[in-house]
Amino acid sequence: MADTGWPGCAKSLKGVILDLCGVLYDSGEGDGVAIPGSIEAVKRLKESDLELRFCTNETQATREKFVAKLQRLGFDISVSEVFPPAPATIAVLKERGLRPHLLVHDGLLPEFDAVDKTNPNCVIIGDAAENFSYQNLNEAFRVLIGLEKPVLFSLGQGRYYKETDGLKLDVGVYMKALEYACDLKAEVIGKPSPTFFQSVLSDMGLKPQEALMIGDDLVNDVGGAQYCGMKGVQVRTGKYRPSDERHPTVIADATVDNLAHAVDVILGQRGRGA
Amino acid sequence: MADTGWPGCAKSLKGVILDLCGVLYDSGEGDGVAIPGSIEAVKRLKESDLELRFCTNETQATREKFVAKLQRLGFDISVSEVFPPAPATIAVLKERGLRPHLLVHDGLLPEFDAVDKTNPNCVIIGDAAENFSYQNLNEAFRVLIGLEKPVLFSLGQGRYYKETDGLKLDVGVYMKALEYACDLKAEVIGKPSPTFFQSVLSDMGLKPQEALMIGDDLVNDVGGAQYCGMKGVQVRTGKYRPSDERHPTVIADATVDNLAHAVDVILGQRGRGA
Repeated sequence: MADTGWPGCAKSLKGVILDLCGVLYDSGEGDGVAIPGSIEAVKRLKESDLELRFCTNETQATREKFVAKLQRLGFDISVSEVFPPAPATIAVLKERGLRPHLLVHDGLLPEFDAVDKTNPNCVIIGDAAENFSYQNLNEAFRVLIGLEKPVLFSLGQGRYYKETDGLKLDVGVYMKALEYACDLKAEVIGKPSPTFFQSVLSDMGLKPQEALMIGDDLVNDVGGAQYCGMKGVQVRTGKYRPSDERHPTVIADATVDNLAHAVDVILGQRGRGA
Repeated sequence: MADTGWPGCAKSLKGVILDLCGVLYDSGEGDGVAIPGSIEAVKRLKESDLELRFCTNETQATREKFVAKLQRLGFDISVSEVFPPAPATIAVLKERGLRPHLLVHDGLLPEFDAVDKTNPNCVIIGDAAENFSYQNLNEAFRVLIGLEKPVLFSLGQGRYYKETDGLKLDVGVYMKALEYACDLKAEVIGKPSPTFFQSVLSDMGLKPQEALMIGDDLVNDVGGAQYCGMKGVQVRTGKYRPSDERHPTVIADATVDNLAHAVDVILGQRGRGA
Protein backbone atom coordinates (compact mmCIF):
# COMPACT_ATOMS: atom_id res chain seq x y z
CA MET A 1 0.00 0.00 0.00
CA ALA A 2 1.25 3.47 -0.88
CA ASP A 3 2.38 5.66 2.01
CA THR A 4 -0.09 8.56 2.17
CA GLY A 5 1.70 10.51 4.92
CA TRP A 6 4.52 13.02 4.64
CA PRO A 7 7.27 12.52 3.58
CA GLY A 8 6.63 8.96 2.34
CA CYS A 9 3.87 10.12 0.00
CA ALA A 10 6.49 11.96 -2.08
CA LYS A 11 7.46 8.63 -3.65
CA SER A 12 4.13 8.33 -5.46
CA LEU A 13 3.79 12.00 -6.46
CA LYS A 14 3.51 12.88 -10.15
CA GLY A 15 3.36 16.65 -9.88
CA VAL A 16 4.02 19.68 -7.70
CA ILE A 17 2.20 23.02 -7.72
CA LEU A 18 4.00 25.99 -6.23
CA ASP A 19 2.64 29.27 -4.98
CA LEU A 20 4.85 32.18 -6.05
CA CYS A 21 4.92 35.14 -3.64
CA GLY A 22 6.17 34.09 -0.20
CA VAL A 23 7.48 30.77 -1.56
CA LEU A 24 9.79 31.73 -4.43
CA TYR A 25 10.29 35.39 -3.52
CA ASP A 26 9.20 38.20 -1.22
CA SER A 27 7.61 41.11 -3.05
CA GLY A 28 8.58 44.69 -2.30
CA GLU A 29 10.43 47.58 -3.89
CA GLY A 30 11.45 46.85 -7.49
CA ASP A 31 11.30 43.14 -8.25
CA GLY A 32 11.43 42.05 -4.62
CA VAL A 33 13.96 39.42 -3.51
CA ALA A 34 14.29 35.69 -4.12
CA ILE A 35 13.94 33.59 -0.97
CA PRO A 36 17.29 31.87 -0.31
CA GLY A 37 17.54 28.47 -1.98
CA SER A 38 14.33 28.84 -3.99
CA ILE A 39 15.93 29.47 -7.41
CA GLU A 40 17.94 26.26 -7.08
CA ALA A 41 14.90 24.38 -5.70
CA VAL A 42 12.79 25.26 -8.77
CA LYS A 43 15.66 24.19 -11.00
CA ARG A 44 15.89 20.82 -9.25
CA LEU A 45 12.14 20.22 -9.56
CA LYS A 46 12.32 21.01 -13.28
CA GLU A 47 15.15 18.52 -13.73
CA SER A 48 13.13 15.83 -11.93
CA ASP A 49 10.41 13.62 -13.42
CA LEU A 50 7.68 15.67 -11.67
CA GLU A 51 5.20 17.89 -13.50
CA LEU A 52 5.58 21.45 -12.24
CA ARG A 53 3.12 24.33 -12.35
CA PHE A 54 2.81 27.66 -10.56
CA CYS A 55 -0.54 28.69 -9.13
CA THR A 56 -0.82 32.25 -7.88
CA ASN A 57 -3.36 34.82 -6.80
CA GLU A 58 -1.02 37.52 -8.17
CA THR A 59 -3.10 40.29 -9.70
CA GLN A 60 -0.80 43.29 -9.61
CA ALA A 61 0.55 42.75 -13.13
CA THR A 62 -0.21 40.87 -16.33
CA ARG A 63 1.02 37.30 -16.45
CA GLU A 64 3.70 38.27 -18.96
CA LYS A 65 4.99 41.07 -16.73
CA PHE A 66 5.35 39.14 -13.52
CA VAL A 67 6.82 36.08 -15.21
CA ALA A 68 9.43 38.44 -16.68
CA LYS A 69 10.07 39.73 -13.15
CA LEU A 70 10.60 36.19 -11.87
CA GLN A 71 12.98 35.51 -14.73
CA ARG A 72 14.95 38.66 -13.81
CA LEU A 73 15.15 37.33 -10.24
CA GLY A 74 16.78 34.20 -11.70
CA PHE A 75 13.90 31.71 -11.86
CA ASP A 76 13.54 29.23 -14.73
CA ILE A 77 9.84 29.80 -15.37
CA SER A 78 7.67 30.41 -18.43
CA VAL A 79 4.27 32.03 -18.98
CA SER A 80 2.48 28.79 -19.92
CA GLU A 81 3.40 27.23 -16.55
CA VAL A 82 1.76 29.99 -14.52
CA PHE A 83 -1.92 30.14 -13.52
CA PRO A 84 -3.19 33.49 -12.17
CA PRO A 85 -6.86 34.53 -11.68
CA ALA A 86 -7.22 37.18 -14.42
CA PRO A 87 -7.20 34.91 -17.51
CA ALA A 88 -9.65 32.57 -15.74
CA THR A 89 -11.91 35.54 -14.99
CA ILE A 90 -11.96 36.71 -18.60
CA ALA A 91 -13.16 33.25 -19.61
CA VAL A 92 -16.03 33.53 -17.09
CA LEU A 93 -17.00 37.00 -18.35
CA LYS A 94 -17.26 35.71 -21.93
CA GLU A 95 -19.26 32.68 -20.87
CA ARG A 96 -21.82 34.76 -18.96
CA GLY A 97 -21.91 37.88 -21.15
CA LEU A 98 -20.71 40.18 -18.36
CA ARG A 99 -19.09 43.61 -18.71
CA PRO A 100 -16.91 44.49 -15.73
CA HIS A 101 -16.23 47.62 -13.73
CA LEU A 102 -12.60 47.08 -12.66
CA LEU A 103 -11.05 47.89 -9.29
CA VAL A 104 -7.62 46.39 -9.83
CA HIS A 105 -3.95 47.34 -9.84
CA ASP A 106 -2.89 49.57 -12.75
CA GLY A 107 -0.47 46.83 -13.76
CA LEU A 108 -3.33 44.36 -14.35
CA LEU A 109 -5.40 46.63 -16.62
CA PRO A 110 -3.77 45.48 -19.90
CA GLU A 111 -5.13 41.93 -19.30
CA PHE A 112 -8.60 43.43 -19.77
CA ASP A 113 -7.79 45.55 -22.83
CA ALA A 114 -9.93 43.43 -25.15
CA VAL A 115 -12.85 43.15 -22.69
CA ASP A 116 -16.01 45.26 -23.17
CA LYS A 117 -16.31 47.48 -20.10
CA THR A 118 -19.13 49.79 -21.24
CA ASN A 119 -22.28 49.98 -19.11
CA PRO A 120 -20.90 47.50 -16.55
CA ASN A 121 -23.08 44.74 -15.09
CA CYS A 122 -20.54 43.30 -12.66
CA VAL A 123 -17.53 44.39 -10.59
CA ILE A 124 -14.11 42.74 -10.47
CA ILE A 125 -11.71 43.45 -7.63
CA GLY A 126 -8.10 42.33 -7.52
CA ASP A 127 -5.20 43.17 -5.24
CA ALA A 128 -5.47 46.86 -6.10
CA ALA A 129 -3.22 48.03 -3.22
CA GLU A 130 -2.98 51.85 -3.32
CA ASN A 131 -5.89 51.89 -5.79
CA PHE A 132 -8.12 50.79 -2.89
CA SER A 133 -8.82 54.44 -2.09
CA TYR A 134 -12.08 55.49 -0.46
CA GLN A 135 -13.20 57.04 -3.72
CA ASN A 136 -12.47 53.95 -5.83
CA LEU A 137 -14.11 51.57 -3.36
CA ASN A 138 -17.13 53.87 -3.21
CA GLU A 139 -17.34 53.89 -7.00
CA ALA A 140 -17.32 50.07 -7.14
CA PHE A 141 -19.99 50.07 -4.40
CA ARG A 142 -22.20 52.45 -6.37
CA VAL A 143 -21.98 50.25 -9.48
CA LEU A 144 -22.97 47.17 -7.46
CA ILE A 145 -25.79 48.82 -5.49
CA GLY A 146 -27.21 50.16 -8.76
CA LEU A 147 -27.49 46.71 -10.35
CA GLU A 148 -30.66 44.67 -10.12
CA LYS A 149 -28.59 41.50 -9.70
CA PRO A 150 -25.19 42.64 -8.40
CA VAL A 151 -22.28 40.33 -9.27
CA LEU A 152 -18.91 40.75 -7.57
CA PHE A 153 -15.86 38.76 -8.64
CA SER A 154 -12.91 38.73 -6.25
CA LEU A 155 -9.53 37.63 -7.61
CA GLY A 156 -8.61 35.70 -4.48
CA GLN A 157 -9.74 36.12 -0.89
CA GLY A 158 -6.45 36.52 0.96
CA ARG A 159 -6.35 38.55 4.16
CA TYR A 160 -2.83 39.92 3.80
CA TYR A 161 0.55 39.17 2.33
CA LYS A 162 4.10 40.07 3.23
CA GLU A 163 6.24 42.55 1.36
CA THR A 164 9.80 43.41 2.24
CA ASP A 165 8.58 46.36 4.33
CA GLY A 166 5.85 44.48 6.21
CA LEU A 167 2.37 42.98 5.97
CA LYS A 168 -0.06 44.38 3.37
CA LEU A 169 -3.83 44.04 3.18
CA ASP A 170 -4.95 41.71 0.40
CA VAL A 171 -8.05 41.68 -1.82
CA GLY A 172 -10.13 39.49 0.51
CA VAL A 173 -10.39 42.33 2.99
CA TYR A 174 -12.03 44.58 0.38
CA MET A 175 -14.17 41.69 -0.82
CA LYS A 176 -15.61 41.43 2.70
CA ALA A 177 -16.10 45.21 2.75
CA LEU A 178 -18.17 45.20 -0.46
CA GLU A 179 -20.04 42.03 0.55
CA TYR A 180 -21.19 43.80 3.69
CA ALA A 181 -21.94 47.11 1.95
CA CYS A 182 -24.15 45.45 -0.68
CA ASP A 183 -25.37 42.43 1.32
CA LEU A 184 -24.09 39.94 -1.27
CA LYS A 185 -21.63 37.06 -1.60
CA ALA A 186 -18.68 37.48 -3.94
CA GLU A 187 -17.59 34.82 -6.40
CA VAL A 188 -13.93 34.07 -5.75
CA ILE A 189 -11.74 33.32 -8.76
CA GLY A 190 -8.30 32.10 -7.74
CA LYS A 191 -7.14 30.04 -4.78
CA PRO A 192 -8.86 28.47 -2.79
CA SER A 193 -11.60 28.03 -5.43
CA PRO A 194 -11.75 24.30 -6.35
CA THR A 195 -12.44 25.06 -10.02
CA PHE A 196 -9.24 27.11 -10.10
CA PHE A 197 -7.10 24.27 -8.66
CA GLN A 198 -8.86 21.82 -10.97
CA SER A 199 -7.88 23.82 -14.05
CA VAL A 200 -4.21 23.48 -13.04
CA LEU A 201 -4.54 19.73 -12.41
CA SER A 202 -6.21 19.32 -15.83
CA ASP A 203 -3.32 21.11 -17.48
CA MET A 204 -0.92 18.70 -15.71
CA GLY A 205 -3.07 15.71 -16.65
CA LEU A 206 -3.07 14.55 -13.04
CA LYS A 207 -5.56 13.43 -10.41
CA PRO A 208 -5.61 15.43 -7.16
CA GLN A 209 -4.03 12.62 -5.11
CA GLU A 210 -1.05 12.62 -7.48
CA ALA A 211 -0.20 16.28 -6.78
CA LEU A 212 1.21 18.33 -3.95
CA MET A 213 0.68 22.06 -3.34
CA ILE A 214 3.37 24.08 -1.57
CA GLY A 215 2.42 27.52 -0.31
CA ASP A 216 2.86 30.06 2.48
CA ASP A 217 -0.89 30.68 2.93
CA LEU A 218 -2.36 28.03 5.19
CA VAL A 219 -5.99 28.59 4.27
CA ASN A 220 -5.83 29.46 0.57
CA ASP A 221 -2.88 27.32 -0.57
CA VAL A 222 -2.82 24.38 1.83
CA GLY A 223 -6.50 24.20 2.84
CA GLY A 224 -7.69 24.88 -0.72
CA ALA A 225 -5.49 22.12 -2.17
CA GLN A 226 -6.48 19.64 0.54
CA TYR A 227 -10.16 20.39 -0.11
CA CYS A 228 -9.56 19.24 -3.71
CA GLY A 229 -7.87 16.03 -2.59
CA MET A 230 -4.24 17.14 -2.97
CA LYS A 231 -1.55 17.14 -0.31
CA GLY A 232 -0.74 20.58 1.08
CA VAL A 233 2.59 21.65 2.58
CA GLN A 234 3.19 25.03 4.21
CA VAL A 235 6.56 26.79 4.14
CA ARG A 236 7.72 28.98 7.04
CA THR A 237 8.43 31.89 4.68
CA GLY A 238 6.29 34.73 3.29
CA LYS A 239 3.13 35.33 5.29
CA TYR A 240 3.62 32.25 7.49
CA ARG A 241 2.93 32.95 11.16
CA PRO A 242 3.65 30.52 14.04
CA SER A 243 -0.04 30.58 14.97
CA ASP A 244 -0.76 28.85 11.62
CA GLU A 245 0.54 25.65 13.22
CA ARG A 246 -2.29 25.84 15.78
CA HIS A 247 -5.06 26.62 13.26
CA PRO A 248 -8.41 25.17 14.41
CA THR A 249 -9.48 23.66 11.07
CA VAL A 250 -6.63 23.58 8.52
CA ILE A 251 -3.75 21.21 9.30
CA ALA A 252 -0.94 21.10 6.75
CA ASP A 253 0.37 17.67 5.72
CA ALA A 254 3.73 19.13 6.67
CA THR A 255 5.24 22.46 7.66
CA VAL A 256 8.79 22.99 6.44
CA ASP A 257 11.27 25.83 6.78
CA ASN A 258 11.30 26.84 3.11
CA LEU A 259 10.93 25.60 -0.46
CA ALA A 260 14.52 24.39 -0.64
CA HIS A 261 13.89 22.16 2.36
CA ALA A 262 10.61 20.82 0.91
CA VAL A 263 12.33 19.96 -2.38
CA ASP A 264 15.22 18.28 -0.54
CA VAL A 265 12.75 16.01 1.23
CA ILE A 266 10.66 15.26 -1.86
CA LEU A 267 13.57 14.46 -4.13
CA GLY A 268 15.36 12.64 -1.32
CA GLN A 269 12.38 10.31 -0.87
CA ARG A 270 12.10 9.69 -4.61
CA GLY A 271 15.78 9.15 -5.28
CA ARG A 272 17.73 7.67 -2.44
CA GLY A 273 14.76 6.54 -0.34
CA ALA A 274 12.96 4.49 -3.03
CA MET B 1 -55.53 49.28 27.94
CA ALA B 2 -52.98 51.46 26.19
CA ASP B 3 -52.79 51.24 22.39
CA THR B 4 -49.36 49.78 21.56
CA GLY B 5 -49.67 50.10 17.77
CA TRP B 6 -48.87 53.04 15.52
CA PRO B 7 -50.23 55.73 15.59
CA GLY B 8 -52.29 55.14 18.73
CA CYS B 9 -49.17 54.49 20.83
CA ALA B 10 -48.20 58.15 20.37
CA LYS B 11 -50.75 59.09 23.08
CA SER B 12 -48.72 57.35 25.80
CA LEU B 13 -45.26 58.45 24.61
CA LYS B 14 -43.06 60.48 26.95
CA GLY B 15 -40.09 61.05 24.68
CA VAL B 16 -38.79 61.00 21.14
CA ILE B 17 -35.25 60.28 19.93
CA LEU B 18 -34.27 61.55 16.49
CA ASP B 19 -31.47 60.46 14.23
CA LEU B 20 -29.79 63.45 12.57
CA CYS B 21 -28.37 62.81 9.10
CA GLY B 22 -31.06 61.68 6.68
CA VAL B 23 -33.84 62.75 9.07
CA LEU B 24 -33.11 66.42 9.82
CA TYR B 25 -30.76 67.09 6.90
CA ASP B 26 -28.86 65.56 4.02
CA SER B 27 -25.09 65.93 4.32
CA GLY B 28 -22.97 67.05 1.41
CA GLU B 29 -20.98 70.06 0.28
CA GLY B 30 -20.71 72.72 2.98
CA ASP B 31 -23.31 72.24 5.70
CA GLY B 32 -25.59 70.06 3.56
CA VAL B 33 -29.30 70.91 3.29
CA ALA B 34 -32.21 70.69 5.72
CA ILE B 35 -34.89 68.19 4.68
CA PRO B 36 -38.11 70.14 3.91
CA GLY B 37 -40.31 70.53 6.99
CA SER B 38 -37.75 69.16 9.43
CA ILE B 39 -36.75 72.49 11.05
CA GLU B 40 -40.39 73.23 11.87
CA ALA B 41 -40.95 69.63 13.02
CA VAL B 42 -38.11 69.82 15.57
CA LYS B 43 -39.51 73.14 16.79
CA ARG B 44 -42.96 71.62 17.29
CA LEU B 45 -41.53 68.66 19.22
CA LYS B 46 -39.62 71.05 21.47
CA GLU B 47 -42.77 73.02 22.17
CA SER B 48 -44.64 69.82 23.09
CA ASP B 49 -44.54 68.00 26.43
CA LEU B 50 -42.27 65.31 24.99
CA GLU B 51 -38.65 64.80 26.00
CA LEU B 52 -36.44 65.18 22.92
CA ARG B 53 -32.93 63.88 22.29
CA PHE B 54 -30.79 63.38 19.20
CA CYS B 55 -28.89 60.11 18.79
CA THR B 56 -26.37 59.97 15.96
CA ASN B 57 -23.50 57.90 14.67
CA GLU B 58 -21.97 61.12 13.30
CA THR B 59 -18.20 60.91 13.65
CA GLN B 60 -16.92 63.36 11.05
CA ALA B 61 -16.72 66.28 13.48
CA THR B 62 -16.67 67.07 17.18
CA ARG B 63 -20.08 67.34 18.83
CA GLU B 64 -19.64 71.12 19.17
CA LYS B 65 -18.83 71.49 15.48
CA PHE B 66 -21.74 69.55 14.05
CA VAL B 67 -24.26 71.01 16.48
CA ALA B 68 -23.07 74.45 15.27
CA LYS B 69 -23.66 73.26 11.69
CA LEU B 70 -27.21 72.18 12.55
CA GLN B 71 -27.82 75.55 14.17
CA ARG B 72 -26.61 77.28 11.01
CA LEU B 73 -29.06 75.16 9.02
CA GLY B 74 -31.80 76.60 11.26
CA PHE B 75 -32.36 73.85 13.83
CA ASP B 76 -33.11 74.63 17.49
CA ILE B 77 -30.66 72.16 19.00
CA SER B 78 -28.00 72.26 21.72
CA VAL B 79 -24.89 70.22 22.47
CA SER B 80 -26.28 68.61 25.63
CA GLU B 81 -29.20 67.12 23.68
CA VAL B 82 -26.97 65.25 21.22
CA PHE B 83 -25.46 61.79 21.73
CA PRO B 84 -22.67 60.75 19.33
CA PRO B 85 -20.29 57.77 19.72
CA ALA B 86 -17.00 59.59 20.40
CA PRO B 87 -17.67 60.82 23.96
CA ALA B 88 -19.04 57.37 24.86
CA THR B 89 -15.86 55.79 23.47
CA ILE B 90 -13.58 58.03 25.51
CA ALA B 91 -15.39 56.88 28.65
CA VAL B 92 -14.73 53.23 27.68
CA LEU B 93 -11.02 53.94 27.04
CA LYS B 94 -10.63 55.45 30.51
CA GLU B 95 -12.48 52.59 32.15
CA ARG B 96 -10.29 49.94 30.51
CA GLY B 97 -6.95 51.77 30.43
CA LEU B 98 -6.71 51.68 26.63
CA ARG B 99 -4.62 53.92 24.36
CA PRO B 100 -6.04 54.19 20.85
CA HIS B 101 -4.61 54.30 17.36
CA LEU B 102 -7.16 56.47 15.54
CA LEU B 103 -8.48 56.01 12.01
CA VAL B 104 -11.13 58.72 11.99
CA HIS B 105 -12.11 61.86 10.12
CA ASP B 106 -9.78 64.83 10.64
CA GLY B 107 -12.75 66.72 12.05
CA LEU B 108 -13.13 64.24 14.91
CA LEU B 109 -9.50 64.35 16.09
CA PRO B 110 -9.99 67.23 18.57
CA GLU B 111 -12.41 65.03 20.60
CA PHE B 112 -9.38 62.85 21.39
CA ASP B 113 -6.94 65.70 22.19
CA ALA B 114 -6.74 64.81 25.87
CA VAL B 115 -6.48 61.04 25.27
CA ASP B 116 -3.12 59.26 25.60
CA LYS B 117 -2.33 57.79 22.18
CA THR B 118 1.27 56.67 22.78
CA ASN B 119 2.14 53.00 22.24
CA PRO B 120 -1.43 52.12 21.22
CA ASN B 121 -3.12 48.96 22.50
CA CYS B 122 -6.38 49.30 20.56
CA VAL B 123 -7.71 50.78 17.31
CA ILE B 124 -10.70 53.10 16.90
CA ILE B 125 -12.33 53.56 13.50
CA GLY B 126 -14.99 56.14 12.72
CA ASP B 127 -16.54 57.37 9.50
CA ALA B 128 -13.15 58.45 8.17
CA ALA B 129 -14.34 58.90 4.55
CA GLU B 130 -11.36 59.97 2.39
CA ASN B 131 -9.04 59.04 5.27
CA PHE B 132 -9.91 55.39 4.55
CA SER B 133 -6.96 55.19 2.17
CA TYR B 134 -5.18 51.90 1.57
CA GLN B 135 -2.21 53.16 3.52
CA ASN B 136 -4.24 54.25 6.55
CA LEU B 137 -6.27 51.04 6.67
CA ASN B 138 -3.05 49.05 6.37
CA GLU B 139 -1.54 51.01 9.25
CA ALA B 140 -4.54 50.27 11.48
CA PHE B 141 -4.29 46.61 10.44
CA ARG B 142 -0.61 46.45 11.38
CA VAL B 143 -1.32 47.90 14.83
CA LEU B 144 -4.05 45.30 15.42
CA ILE B 145 -2.12 42.30 14.08
CA GLY B 146 0.83 43.29 16.27
CA LEU B 147 -1.20 43.22 19.50
CA GLU B 148 -1.40 40.11 21.62
CA LYS B 149 -5.07 40.82 22.33
CA PRO B 150 -6.26 43.06 19.47
CA VAL B 151 -9.17 45.37 20.36
CA LEU B 152 -11.07 47.19 17.62
CA PHE B 153 -13.72 49.80 18.40
CA SER B 154 -16.03 50.80 15.56
CA LEU B 155 -18.02 54.01 15.94
CA GLY B 156 -21.16 52.57 14.38
CA GLN B 157 -21.58 49.74 11.90
CA GLY B 158 -23.53 51.45 9.08
CA ARG B 159 -23.12 50.15 5.54
CA TYR B 160 -23.59 53.46 3.74
CA TYR B 161 -25.25 56.85 3.99
CA LYS B 162 -26.54 59.36 1.53
CA GLU B 163 -24.90 62.66 0.73
CA THR B 164 -26.26 65.21 -1.70
CA ASP B 165 -24.07 63.71 -4.46
CA GLY B 166 -24.95 60.06 -3.79
CA LEU B 167 -24.39 57.08 -1.50
CA LYS B 168 -21.18 56.91 0.53
CA LEU B 169 -19.58 53.93 2.25
CA ASP B 170 -19.88 54.08 6.04
CA VAL B 171 -17.61 52.86 8.83
CA GLY B 172 -19.23 49.40 9.10
CA VAL B 173 -17.74 48.42 5.76
CA TYR B 174 -14.22 49.09 7.04
CA MET B 175 -15.06 47.41 10.35
CA LYS B 176 -15.87 44.22 8.40
CA ALA B 177 -12.64 44.64 6.43
CA LEU B 178 -10.48 44.78 9.57
CA GLU B 179 -12.50 42.03 11.30
CA TYR B 180 -11.68 39.73 8.38
CA ALA B 181 -8.05 40.84 8.09
CA CYS B 182 -7.35 40.20 11.78
CA ASP B 183 -9.90 37.44 12.45
CA LEU B 184 -11.55 39.36 15.30
CA LYS B 185 -14.90 40.87 16.24
CA ALA B 186 -15.12 44.63 16.66
CA GLU B 187 -16.87 46.29 19.59
CA VAL B 188 -19.46 48.68 18.19
CA ILE B 189 -19.99 51.96 20.04
CA GLY B 190 -22.99 53.87 18.70
CA LYS B 191 -26.28 52.69 17.24
CA PRO B 192 -27.43 49.86 17.27
CA SER B 193 -25.51 49.05 20.46
CA PRO B 194 -28.09 48.64 23.29
CA THR B 195 -25.81 50.30 25.85
CA PHE B 196 -25.66 53.35 23.59
CA PHE B 197 -29.46 53.66 23.32
CA GLN B 198 -29.74 52.99 27.07
CA SER B 199 -27.47 55.94 27.86
CA VAL B 200 -29.86 58.23 25.97
CA LEU B 201 -32.92 56.80 27.72
CA SER B 202 -31.19 57.28 31.09
CA ASP B 203 -30.55 60.92 30.28
CA MET B 204 -34.26 61.32 29.45
CA GLY B 205 -35.28 59.48 32.62
CA LEU B 206 -37.54 57.21 30.56
CA LYS B 207 -38.23 53.52 30.18
CA PRO B 208 -37.80 52.08 26.65
CA GLN B 209 -41.54 51.58 26.12
CA GLU B 210 -42.09 55.29 26.79
CA ALA B 211 -39.84 56.37 23.92
CA LEU B 212 -39.90 56.38 20.12
CA MET B 213 -36.89 56.42 17.79
CA ILE B 214 -37.22 58.02 14.35
CA GLY B 215 -34.49 57.29 11.82
CA ASP B 216 -33.70 56.64 8.17
CA ASP B 217 -31.58 53.53 8.85
CA LEU B 218 -33.84 50.51 9.21
CA VAL B 219 -31.31 48.25 10.91
CA ASN B 220 -29.33 50.63 13.10
CA ASP B 221 -32.03 53.16 14.06
CA VAL B 222 -35.29 51.22 13.92
CA GLY B 223 -34.05 47.69 14.61
CA GLY B 224 -31.63 48.87 17.30
CA ALA B 225 -34.34 50.85 19.12
CA GLN B 226 -36.84 48.00 18.88
CA TYR B 227 -34.25 45.57 20.27
CA CYS B 228 -34.12 47.82 23.37
CA GLY B 229 -37.92 47.85 23.74
CA MET B 230 -38.63 51.20 22.06
CA LYS B 231 -40.87 51.85 19.12
CA GLY B 232 -39.04 52.48 15.85
CA VAL B 233 -40.32 54.55 12.93
CA GLN B 234 -38.49 54.84 9.60
CA VAL B 235 -38.68 57.94 7.42
CA ARG B 236 -38.56 57.74 3.62
CA THR B 237 -35.69 60.27 3.46
CA GLY B 238 -31.91 59.95 3.69
CA LYS B 239 -30.65 56.43 3.03
CA TYR B 240 -34.16 54.92 2.95
CA ARG B 241 -34.63 52.47 0.08
CA PRO B 242 -37.97 50.90 -0.96
CA SER B 243 -36.53 47.42 -0.31
CA ASP B 244 -36.33 48.36 3.40
CA GLU B 245 -40.09 47.81 3.55
CA ARG B 246 -39.53 44.16 2.57
CA HIS B 247 -36.67 43.51 5.02
CA PRO B 248 -36.66 39.89 6.21
CA THR B 249 -36.12 40.58 9.92
CA VAL B 250 -36.60 44.26 10.83
CA ILE B 251 -40.13 45.62 10.50
CA ALA B 252 -40.63 49.26 11.43
CA ASP B 253 -43.61 50.15 13.64
CA ALA B 254 -44.39 52.62 10.89
CA THR B 255 -42.83 53.98 7.72
CA VAL B 256 -43.63 57.64 7.02
CA ASP B 257 -42.67 60.04 4.27
CA ASN B 258 -40.53 62.34 6.42
CA LEU B 259 -40.01 63.77 9.88
CA ALA B 260 -42.64 66.47 9.40
CA HIS B 261 -45.23 63.81 8.65
CA ALA B 262 -44.20 61.72 11.68
CA VAL B 263 -44.48 64.73 13.99
CA ASP B 264 -47.87 65.63 12.50
CA VAL B 265 -49.16 62.18 13.35
CA ILE B 266 -47.60 62.07 16.85
CA LEU B 267 -48.81 65.51 17.91
CA GLY B 268 -52.16 64.95 16.21
CA GLN B 269 -52.75 61.81 18.25
CA ARG B 270 -51.76 63.54 21.50
CA GLY B 271 -53.69 66.72 20.94
CA ARG B 272 -56.84 66.42 18.97
CA GLY B 273 -57.14 62.60 19.09
CA ALA B 274 -56.93 62.14 22.89
